[in-house]
Amino acid sequence: MSNRAESVLVGLIGEGVMPSLTPPMHEREADVQGLRLLYRPLDLLELALPATAVGDLLTAAHRMGFNGLNITHPCKQLVLEHLDEISDDARRLGAVNTVLIQDGRFTGHNTDFSGFGSALADGLPNAKLDRVVQLGAGGAGSAVAYSLLKAGVSTLNLVDMDPARAAERAAELGGLFPQATVTAHAPGELGDIMPLADGLVHCTPIGMAAHPGLPLDIELLEPRQWVADIVYRPIETQLVREARAKGCDVLDGGRMAVGQAADAFQLITGREADRERMRAHFLELIAVEDAAASLTPELTKAGH
Amino acid sequence: MSNRAESVLVGLIGEGVMPSLTPPMHEREADVQGLRLLYRPLDLLELALPATAVGDLLTAAHRMGFNGLNITHPCKQLVLEHLDEISDDARRLGAVNTVLIQDGRFTGHNTDFSGFGSALADGLPNAKLDRVVQLGAGGAGSAVAYSLLKAGVSTLNLVDMDPARAAERAAELGGLFPQATVTAHAPGELGDIMPLADGLVHCTPIGMAAHPGLPLDIELLEPRQWVADIVYRPIETQLVREARAKGCDVLDGGRMAVGQAADAFQLITGREADRERMRAHFLELIAVEDAAASLTPELTKAGH
Repeated sequence: MSNRAESVLVGLIGEGVMPSLTPPMHEREADVQGLRLLYRPLDLLELALPATAVGDLLTAAHRMGFNGLNITHPCKQLVLEHLDEISDDARRLGAVNTVLIQDGRFTGHNTDFSGFGSALADGLPNAKLDRVVQLGAGGAGSAVAYSLLKAGVSTLNLVDMDPARAAERAAELGGLFPQATVTAHAPGELGDIMPLADGLVHCTPIGMAAHPGLPLDIELLEPRQWVADIVYRPIETQLVREARAKGCDVLDGGRMAVGQAADAFQLITGREADRERMRAHFLELIAVEDAAASLTPELTKAGH
Repeated sequence: MSNRAESVLVGLIGEGVMPSLTPPMHEREADVQGLRLLYRPLDLLELALPATAVGDLLTAAHRMGFNGLNITHPCKQLVLEHLDEISDDARRLGAVNTVLIQDGRFTGHNTDFSGFGSALADGLPNAKLDRVVQLGAGGAGSAVAYSLLKAGVSTLNLVDMDPARAAERAAELGGLFPQATVTAHAPGELGDIMPLADGLVHCTPIGMAAHPGLPLDIELLEPRQWVADIVYRPIETQLVREARAKGCDVLDGGRMAVGQAADAFQLITGREADRERMRAHFLELIAVEDAAASLTPELTKAGH
């Protein structure tokens, strides 16, 4: 159609997604590029739908003219069976956070792992990746561990409060990357493994506004080690702050959040995203929210 | 949410709606107003869905974050049973072309009749409305007739190739407007009723690119009579051209098309639409399409 300008419709399916910063990040980047893009958070809780409704929502998204979706907790695994095609990495990882809708076909990708990978490459370009300790082996942790192993980490120590989960994840990842050594550890072993590590990656909720604190004894960190946090609200977690004060090179969680969004933007729109511009906008969005939160102390308190 | 700019998502449900000019009209008006709006045509034929799927599509639209829908052939009656609320006019008319989605509730309106009404008031402000002949008593004709009677027409002569349809429609409308006289006629009676009429309204497909020609003997028109056509592709139908040449005041079909779109825009966005700006854009869209069509003669030919 000669009079139809290209336009892009995107949704985010998950629980509690209304405050997500991904929709405004995509919309602003599209605005700068002169592309009509509208991004709707689609909250299962608000819609009173179970996580298993993700297949029906995919059908609805196709019928209603959506070009792509982001998928988050608790649907990243549930969505797999509804896809026509899955990228190799997402299939190996067993999790999809981005779905392209083209001619009624659904193709799954994972930009959590690729977003962390580009965040690491951009934010810590000189990081030594021989031996890494990772705290947290949950969903986000799986994507990060996969990304670390793809980036060439040869020994990955997975630490989790749940020893069975750490062992299971270590076995899976060891199978996918046979040239690497992936081991499972309880938090009590950190004193033994940290002195050998080049860097530390943190993938638990500790440090978020609702879970303040440090995920490990800060004395275990040495200035020669780099530290990557995936928590980004606040952007300056206690871990990031204290690691930086110690002299460590630090990667905040904002870079992964921006990385996954930039990669999803590129997949869905077919256009390159300017990552530095998206990061600047992301930091601006967080600052606006922090300012708003400081005006509503009862909400801030409820958050803690 | 402090960081969420207002945005509006709209769809058009019907058969063969991909070339509709309503989506770009809404999008352009929103652009000028600085409002993020994306309008998707949702074509039942492309989706291989029956007209009775309109209820499922309403549910999907709510879930996928749509603010409103336009509804067209063949769903304007079928949609009624799926609505929580219906405006008085749409209920009396028995047809809905606009659905607002608010807090999971669906409210039906009809901007076909209101759009014709404002088109008539804007385009033929001095038209005498005592006695009007209307050609065509189908779906669009019903909305136009309703609008004419609301505007104060006291005698409406409905002419249709299908005498049963004309009689049925005349009886319905006579019931709704007991102070008016609504009569049904066959085309053969035009010689008797036209000399008494103040104006003529044309609501059949004749004059469209695919149905060229005149819907009545042009000799029946007198310069003192006004003529309103609802066909708008081409904007200058043979009827509009020859009536104007005779000296009649003329309303082209573009005004009704713009009127229904402007009224729907206002209902869905809650913002006033600039009708003259929308009409200018509409004429521009048609000109672009005509230019494109002249470059693809085989398509033009297929259209005839």
